[in-house]
Amino acid sequence: MATKLVGKQTFALQNPPSFAGHACVVGKKEGDGPLKDSFDRIFEDPFLGEASWEKAESALVKAAVSTALAKAGLAPAGINCMFCGDLLNQCVGTTFGLRELGVPMFGVYGACSTMAESLALAALTIDGGFADNALAVTSSHFCSAERQFRTPLEYGGQRPPSAQWTVTGSGAAVLSAQGPGPYVTHVTPGKMVDNGVTDANNMGAAMAPAAYDTIKQHFEDMSAGPDAYDLIVTGDLGEVGSTILRDFFASDGVDIASRHADCGLLIFDRKKQDVHAGGSGCGCAASVLCGYLLNGMREGRWNRILFTATGALLSPTTTMQGESIPSIACSVVIAKTR
Amino acid sequence: MATKLVGKQTFALQNPPSFAGHACVVGKKEGDGPLKDSFDRIFEDPFLGEASWEKAESALVKAAVSTALAKAGLAPAGINCMFCGDLLNQCVGTTFGLRELGVPMFGVYGACSTMAESLALAALTIDGGFADNALAVTSSHFCSAERQFRTPLEYGGQRPPSAQWTVTGSGAAVLSAQGPGPYVTHVTPGKMVDNGVTDANNMGAAMAPAAYDTIKQHFEDMSAGPDAYDLIVTGDLGEVGSTILRDFFASDGVDIASRHADCGLLIFDRKKQDVHAGGSGCGCAASVLCGYLLNGMREGRWNRILFTATGALLSPTTTMQGESIPSIACSVVIAKTR
Repeated sequence: MATKLVGKQTFALQNPPSFAGHACVVGKKEGDGPLKDSFDRIFEDPFLGEASWEKAESALVKAAVSTALAKAGLAPAGINCMFCGDLLNQCVGTTFGLRELGVPMFGVYGACSTMAESLALAALTIDGGFADNALAVTSSHFCSAERQFRTPLEYGGQRPPSAQWTVTGSGAAVLSAQGPGPYVTHVTPGKMVDNGVTDANNMGAAMAPAAYDTIKQHFEDMSAGPDAYDLIVTGDLGEVGSTILRDFFASDGVDIASRHADCGLLIFDRKKQDVHAGGSGCGCAASVLCGYLLNGMREGRWNRILFTATGALLSPTTTMQGESIPSIACSVVIAKTR
Repeated sequence: MATKLVGKQTFALQNPPSFAGHACVVGKKEGDGPLKDSFDRIFEDPFLGEASWEKAESALVKAAVSTALAKAGLAPAGINCMFCGDLLNQCVGTTFGLRELGVPMFGVYGACSTMAESLALAALTIDGGFADNALAVTSSHFCSAERQFRTPLEYGGQRPPSAQWTVTGSGAAVLSAQGPGPYVTHVTPGKMVDNGVTDANNMGAAMAPAAYDTIKQHFEDMSAGPDAYDLIVTGDLGEVGSTILRDFFASDGVDIASRHADCGLLIFDRKKQDVHAGGSGCGCAASVLCGYLLNGMREGRWNRILFTATGALLSPTTTMQGESIPSIACSVVIAKTR
């Protein structure tokens, strides 16, 4: 009877799976940013030699997965199942990138929370005894996202200061039942939260309440506070959303600011790079996790992090129909020891 | 070490979860079809009183979920997590339908295989010890699908004989750790298969090889043949895809035809209803499973079925870029006894 359910909605893994391999590949702009040394590969050509932005995004996915598999020392046949998805309509970034891999697939859609969601499901599947090795992967591409969600690049539309810059990148992680860590020890899936934000150019504000809801629930379920973590890292709230999240917790008398970081703020230098409120996209949290964060854990910089990717579950159609933006956040605890 | 992995890619559940409640709601055309008595509710108004087709689809989801919860005797707070998704861009059919439910969510995208995928993940999550009750739900709506994937209804485009008719409907199932059955006993997730079909008006042909791949693998993993099942039911291969699937097995000397049925062929009367090759859409397999099939099992019509929903992982963008159609099929064994 739900022996691994802690509190209301946190799953405590009994045999936490280990990161066997992880990799991230990005575009030029990301490669010019502060995390440039953490990426496995930086593609100067935004098309990656392909004929369309969508195919370029699929090429990113392919590169991230093959690198992660190589690092894990596994062939595709060694992966029992994979969890993947992205921002493109019908998730074609990942499916077309991985259609030749021959690995049993569960497609997921969590918007920019996809890396946490896919990682969570991969971990649950291994801990549940169904897989020895599972893959979690996601991607985004600035150009494919712009033309699908906003306007074609050629239109040259102006972006308000609250807008974020979709990361061109992909992150892939292989989890294994056995290994030296870091480990996925807990998962807190999120509920949808919709506080009525209708501005699709202010996704940080739309997503912050979801991040707050999941992280607060996680603390309650774990009977812990922010000091249980060396780092609380959100996916892509950017400057606007991060401020709101910290304010929400401050109103509760909880200080997360001193140990909070946001992948959307880490990946770009907002002073030097024209990205407005910061980075976003499925590939943002994915490429920061699969490089900077996991490398940092291996190097001893952090021992225990709360990785919370956030997603805005809007579509251009719902925006045109005047709808507000439901959002979601999924939290995953990653620790050096089980 | 993957104690529940059987053969190459089949998961054998240790404590098979039970269907605690299931419900399906459909539109008028489905309500005029052969399965009319199996639906919980038939909506005569294609808009369901809403202002857009997308909102109408969300209303279908809401109705299916509230009915399934009522049948299970559970409030939303009693559901530990839900797995949901649909065909619409960014899966807004289900997310907007369920955003107020307050249930932790994992969004999935498996195109028309979504009911099997979400059911599979709900079952794994319960069997893994993470949840007592989990919800699986998906939907489709003829009008929202037509305008998104093909042409606006007002255009009046002609459809070739191989085209299928997207079902207006939603199916929802609550799985519980305890209960009198029927039970989900095994899951075989599918690999993507792309045999080069590029005609988006012939999805049956695109999906049949994926169904063949997963079902064949399932038989191998289980060391069983078609006679282990009272019914082998595919999601929405329609007339074209069903014929191909049966032919593939016949070439192997395996007769599945005598016990094969397809939800896309069951839900409409092709002689009287103008649906060309049959029904399709996430809501097709979902509404047939959550009414006709599960009711039939309860009534003793079948004791063990292999439910295999199939999905065509294309998008209008990939079709316009000349791409072929990767497809996937996920198999779930449902049995009256554990």
